[in-house]
Amino acid sequence: MNFPSKLVENAVNQLSRLPGIGKRSALRLVLHMLKQEKNSVEQFGDSFIQLINRINYCSRCYGISDSEFCEVCSNPKRDIETICIVEDIRVMMAIESTMQYKGVYHILGGLISPMDGVGPNDIRAEELVEKVKNGAVKEVIFALSTTMEGDTTNYYLFRRLKGSGVKISSIARGIAIGDELEYTDEITLATAISSRMPYENSLAK
Amino acid sequence: MNFPSKLVENAVNQLSRLPGIGKRSALRLVLHMLKQEKNSVEQFGDSFIQLINRINYCSRCYGISDSEFCEVCSNPKRDIETICIVEDIRVMMAIESTMQYKGVYHILGGLISPMDGVGPNDIRAEELVEKVKNGAVKEVIFALSTTMEGDTTNYYLFRRLKGSGVKISSIARGIAIGDELEYTDEITLATAISSRMPYENSLAK
Repeated sequence: MNFPSKLVENAVNQLSRLPGIGKRSALRLVLHMLKQEKNSVEQFGDSFIQLINRINYCSRCYGISDSEFCEVCSNPKRDIETICIVEDIRVMMAIESTMQYKGVYHILGGLISPMDGVGPNDIRAEELVEKVKNGAVKEVIFALSTTMEGDTTNYYLFRRLKGSGVKISSIARGIAIGDELEYTDEITLATAISSRMPYENSLAK
Repeated sequence: MNFPSKLVENAVNQLSRLPGIGKRSALRLVLHMLKQEKNSVEQFGDSFIQLINRINYCSRCYGISDSEFCEVCSNPKRDIETICIVEDIRVMMAIESTMQYKGVYHILGGLISPMDGVGPNDIRAEELVEKVKNGAVKEVIFALSTTMEGDTTNYYLFRRLKGSGVKISSIARGIAIGDELEYTDEITLATAISSRMPYENSLAK
């Protein structure tokens, strides 16, 4: 693309470095911005500068936080003996929005993926092992994606935590609520049959 | 969504105000940024602040430019007596990339759309009429989208310019190069038949 302005070109390049935004969409967005109030575009740009300069991570769960401990970790009503292991803050936010979970979290910051060169040292695995070793942890719940990477990470953590005396569980795998069995893939169906649960446990929350 | 940080919430809100970006995608992008170098995120934010503060518009065609006249208008090889009327800079960039057009442009900055409350005074229609009245303009070429809004704008400008002695033309409407007639809509097909052109003119450039 041959841009009529270096400023536009720069803004387009910056936007199109984000995942899922191509040069054409980026140009459309930049032209949209040029139609906005100067003040609001300045706020837009400034929000990212503030973000990267002032962001904090919770000292306990490594979640994003505006203070030393995140809202969950600093809430005295939460059960700090139960730790839910999640890939990132998005999963934590999704579980929080169910309002069913009363424990705390441990944010790995990624999943083990040899294909992408991500090993155990690239995620917060050691921090979890230390936490379980030192703290009064009763249960660890794996809540990772049911993908190759999620399963690899689950298995690695399971091996590291096994023998520490802590209860290790995984969120249930089975048929999603609202799904029709006819269209469910064989692996999920087979897993759901072999991992059948007491009827009362299977009711939608 | 219940955000664990005001900074993240603010950045997500800013991004999701852009057309086509929802809250979920915005959060994904913000988390992506948090994994980048501090410096690169600062540059990202700063590019928009620079953009909105330093952007210039060409005094002749109203296109985006880093100096008083844009690259096209300041090029002595361009034919300033032929003006191509376009909706925005994206169309100008698309036409420029064909390298077939040697005239200059007039950027309307929008299309007349009564449904959206956009009237002739909200686009640079008067500026075009003045330009044709005052300048040595020989031909005006309408290159607007073949939509209701484009057609309305074409018609309005045609009525305003009619009688000024300037030649008024429109980019050809017909079957796109590479299209199969079998799948072409009836209106395009009918227009293409009634607006048939000498064979030599119809060859792909």
